[in-house]
Amino acid sequence: MHWAEGLIAVDWGTTNRRAWRLGPDGAVAAEMEDDKGILAVPKGGFHAAVAGVRDRLGDLPMLMAGMVGSNRGWVEAPYVPCPAGLADLAAHLHWLEGERAAIVPGIAWDEGEAADVMRGEEVQLLGAVAEGWIGPDSALCHPGTHNKWVRLAGGRIAEFRTVMTGEMFSLLREHSILADLLDGPVEPGPAFEAGVRHGLERDDLTAELFSVRARALLGKAPRADAGAYVSGLLIGADLKVGLGMVGDGEVVAMGRPELTELFRAALAVAGRTAREVNGEAAFLAGVRHLAEMVR
Amino acid sequence: MHWAEGLIAVDWGTTNRRAWRLGPDGAVAAEMEDDKGILAVPKGGFHAAVAGVRDRLGDLPMLMAGMVGSNRGWVEAPYVPCPAGLADLAAHLHWLEGERAAIVPGIAWDEGEAADVMRGEEVQLLGAVAEGWIGPDSALCHPGTHNKWVRLAGGRIAEFRTVMTGEMFSLLREHSILADLLDGPVEPGPAFEAGVRHGLERDDLTAELFSVRARALLGKAPRADAGAYVSGLLIGADLKVGLGMVGDGEVVAMGRPELTELFRAALAVAGRTAREVNGEAAFLAGVRHLAEMVR
Repeated sequence: MHWAEGLIAVDWGTTNRRAWRLGPDGAVAAEMEDDKGILAVPKGGFHAAVAGVRDRLGDLPMLMAGMVGSNRGWVEAPYVPCPAGLADLAAHLHWLEGERAAIVPGIAWDEGEAADVMRGEEVQLLGAVAEGWIGPDSALCHPGTHNKWVRLAGGRIAEFRTVMTGEMFSLLREHSILADLLDGPVEPGPAFEAGVRHGLERDDLTAELFSVRARALLGKAPRADAGAYVSGLLIGADLKVGLGMVGDGEVVAMGRPELTELFRAALAVAGRTAREVNGEAAFLAGVRHLAEMVR
Repeated sequence: MHWAEGLIAVDWGTTNRRAWRLGPDGAVAAEMEDDKGILAVPKGGFHAAVAGVRDRLGDLPMLMAGMVGSNRGWVEAPYVPCPAGLADLAAHLHWLEGERAAIVPGIAWDEGEAADVMRGEEVQLLGAVAEGWIGPDSALCHPGTHNKWVRLAGGRIAEFRTVMTGEMFSLLREHSILADLLDGPVEPGPAFEAGVRHGLERDDLTAELFSVRARALLGKAPRADAGAYVSGLLIGADLKVGLGMVGDGEVVAMGRPELTELFRAALAVAGRTAREVNGEAAFLAGVRHLAEMVR
């Protein structure tokens, strides 16, 4: 990929996309964000959607990651198996437009009955390793619609597990019988922490969710606390899965700061220390390293 | 309530309502079912909605149960606390129209931090007891949008716990990233039973749900099995809560036959025997006994 004049990095998800123009030195020169996630692009509409990005950021080579490489995206970039590091991603880029654009493949974990897939987070995780922000054998969580728990080994992604925490909260808030209870603020505090403790200690998630409604109906708990409590409950159940996988030691929480802050607070309830790493900075680091590898 | 010429029994839920005309001897003379659940009735529209039932079934006294007595229904009939039997319900009927109509109150369970509420199922459960179909100290589950696990003692509802199993499956099938995987048939069989086993043995529901998608994407599990597997997974997690509450012995599964059959199959995986009782017959039995008590 020839990017002597710079390149465009795109994090193209299901419902949103973000793009940055990087100068020849890798510094951010411009950026954009809109709601043209892959589900908003009609079949056969990716050439036009990509042209829209270049109209705004410049006629430059593009490196893309995320759901744009899924079976609903521009083209399917097959998953690379674990263990996978940046060099593995670079070797399996899916090239388009005569090498003027490339899609980063996702990663698959497949062991016996268990299986998992990831698309997009891998660039952030491995970018942070390449930059030296996190160690090559770190344990991480990456909260979002689907939280990813990741174990690194030797700078590569060795194993990971997805928990549908963010999506579950959205489903409950938008479509469930709890919807009108969950419009309150979600932030660290006593209600959130009580939820985390319940989720960590008990194994009755689908029952406890209804109890939230019952306690509100019977006036036993403030309605305004329900959102934070349910968020804590789901994150507590999530931590139980993740901490069982990553073992002892520091956990890195990577992603959007408002989410990594919640996970850091929840990890504190579990007696674990967490360090937050900004997902956007890590994504750009990952893109820069990949682009250098294929220069 | 004077019902020498018969009465109308109504099971009025959130999204549906069913009504039966009972003759002076209690036998069913006519019935109807439509989608005018309480959410489909506009504010102040219950007189008209009730008139619609009488237009179809006759100008008779009415005994109503279910969400019609909730804060979103016709009038709120306050919960009766556990332990509660038929006589407790009869003593707390909410009378309307100069005793020409009555709403059966719901039941609340409230103990320390725990709380739960029920509206509608109580008539079925206690009707079956009064009829002698189930013993006065039975353990039951009542699957539906919200499954109820119930422990009877001395013919009264002593304790119960709600699990959001049915609603959770609907949310996943209609609105989640798993939606297009879950349109297959849900019936007892190997995929369903594998889901039940996972739900009973493991404590990672929100992670295992995503694994279903990953296994389908990687071709490790047939897509057509996903619906039955996820249904089994949710029911297995549900059983873990319920069986912890009701102890040893036979479990009665009461409700709609297509659901009680699934729960019976799931209980068999857990090594438990279950007896199915038809919920409609039990509802009508409960209404008849209540109507006799206030004749």
